[in-house]
Amino acid sequence: MRELIEQVFAHHLSNPLLDIQADAVPVSVGATEIMVTTDGFTVQPLEFPGGDIGSLAVHGTINDLAVSGATPLYLSLSTFIEEGMEIAQLERIVSSLGRAATSAGVQVVAGDTKVVRRGEGGGLYIAATGVGIRAPGLSLGMQHIRAGDAMIVSGPVGDHGIAVMLAREQFGLRSDLQSDAASVLPLTRALLPLSGLRFMRDPTRGGLATVANEISRATGLGVLLRDEQIPVREAVRSVCEMLGYDPLYLACEGRVVAVVAADQAAAALAAWRALPQGEFAAIIGAVEKTQPQVIMETALGGKRFLEELEDDPLPRIC
Amino acid sequence: MRELIEQVFAHHLSNPLLDIQADAVPVSVGATEIMVTTDGFTVQPLEFPGGDIGSLAVHGTINDLAVSGATPLYLSLSTFIEEGMEIAQLERIVSSLGRAATSAGVQVVAGDTKVVRRGEGGGLYIAATGVGIRAPGLSLGMQHIRAGDAMIVSGPVGDHGIAVMLAREQFGLRSDLQSDAASVLPLTRALLPLSGLRFMRDPTRGGLATVANEISRATGLGVLLRDEQIPVREAVRSVCEMLGYDPLYLACEGRVVAVVAADQAAAALAAWRALPQGEFAAIIGAVEKTQPQVIMETALGGKRFLEELEDDPLPRIC
Repeated sequence: MRELIEQVFAHHLSNPLLDIQADAVPVSVGATEIMVTTDGFTVQPLEFPGGDIGSLAVHGTINDLAVSGATPLYLSLSTFIEEGMEIAQLERIVSSLGRAATSAGVQVVAGDTKVVRRGEGGGLYIAATGVGIRAPGLSLGMQHIRAGDAMIVSGPVGDHGIAVMLAREQFGLRSDLQSDAASVLPLTRALLPLSGLRFMRDPTRGGLATVANEISRATGLGVLLRDEQIPVREAVRSVCEMLGYDPLYLACEGRVVAVVAADQAAAALAAWRALPQGEFAAIIGAVEKTQPQVIMETALGGKRFLEELEDDPLPRIC
Repeated sequence: MRELIEQVFAHHLSNPLLDIQADAVPVSVGATEIMVTTDGFTVQPLEFPGGDIGSLAVHGTINDLAVSGATPLYLSLSTFIEEGMEIAQLERIVSSLGRAATSAGVQVVAGDTKVVRRGEGGGLYIAATGVGIRAPGLSLGMQHIRAGDAMIVSGPVGDHGIAVMLAREQFGLRSDLQSDAASVLPLTRALLPLSGLRFMRDPTRGGLATVANEISRATGLGVLLRDEQIPVREAVRSVCEMLGYDPLYLACEGRVVAVVAADQAAAALAAWRALPQGEFAAIIGAVEKTQPQVIMETALGGKRFLEELEDDPLPRIC
């Protein structure tokens, strides 16, 4: 259904600026270029360890600007609130949203709320649009990726997906795991000075494996990932083993995957590791001049394909 | 509940730029000022005579920019689609949305779709954010309104509210009435050259009476409306009489209310009447140096207060 829907929108709304692959798009306003991004949030439950739909909406939106190399400035919010939602919960969520915005240095400048009938609306949906600016001349994107480039990730993957899933309490599993949901601005800013920086993305829906597949598809090159280099927390690994998920396909909401020229990979890694949120950053693979494919190599030399995701393994986590 | 919700948002997100009364807010990006507005759309049914939720989302958003004196440039859209929604209907709606955007000269530059569980989401919700620019130095707003100013409306009120309500087929009433939903850009542009233009608004939720009350509250002045001057279609009047609604409280989605200096009221009226969508424009009242109140004067000299609306007479019409 998702694919069908995307076709419908792409078909009827296509214009040179609408790029459904991009995190944020540059548009001109007079002589100024602004970056615009928009995202809808429907996470269930609305509050989870390490975040809630309010902070997630802020982080998700500013992260799309951040990985485009932009500085987020303004947010607009449109909320759909189900009639009968507990006001105390709404208050917690909006307060958390406000704190997330303040601490990321963005201002909420426009808002709208619609109350929808009880039984519709899943409690609360939030649509957020972010506006930012980036340094003139800066261009990041998959079109800059070359064979030989290194791929790095800023921290352990899958925390968000598993934390939200466990919060649903469907499986009777408990854990201290927290969502990684956070602003990635410090991470993206740390790499911007590197001339060899090609591309950044926050691996949300579909996780790391999906970003790797998108890179492979867009460049026509192969991506080789090294299993033992990819940071995955023990708690995430064990829940995944028990329930049959692959952490590489799970959403992160506070991580960045970057592709950098091989000779600057060490510098990029050092820049990230110098930050509290980049402590576990790692070089996890490389782009290779093979046919377009994503291959995971294990420590023992085994190889397996990481296929494109057919559908979300965990729906409603962002 | 609405009031409570607005308090929650205002409390936690307050900053100098967030003005919940404004249609669109000016924000600075480098040396450029852009205008930003955001709105959520939940109309039921999704398609109605004269429009649908897609064209409504475009018109509603660009109209908020237009009445601020801005030229809309870009739209971003976030849609929440209920699982199982008929793709043919989605296709019609998105196509209509695309046509509305093209004909208003705006580009959809960012989009996101989220599929929500069957039984949630009311079929389709759309959140839209609009970005535009306005002439430097232009300032419109209720703070410019003075006693003696005239109030004009661009066309018959209440068409949208009644057209949507009849489309619900709850009342067994039929009519050829079409929603007035449309871009008001030609109307707002026609008044911008007038130095005596104080304020414009599209009377959506709560209709003309609500705009009049907001003016009265913001200025501390009275608003006197003349019943026989206010254009209301016969079909709207009869449905309202049958069902006990007051057309002055019903949403329009393609009309503009403007306040202009008394000596330019005739010029404003002429500018609107020269346009196809302003054929039935009328001077409907004046701002007066009385206590803050909205009074409707009938042709026979009777007077009644138009009170502030406690709640929407017709929910889910925009």
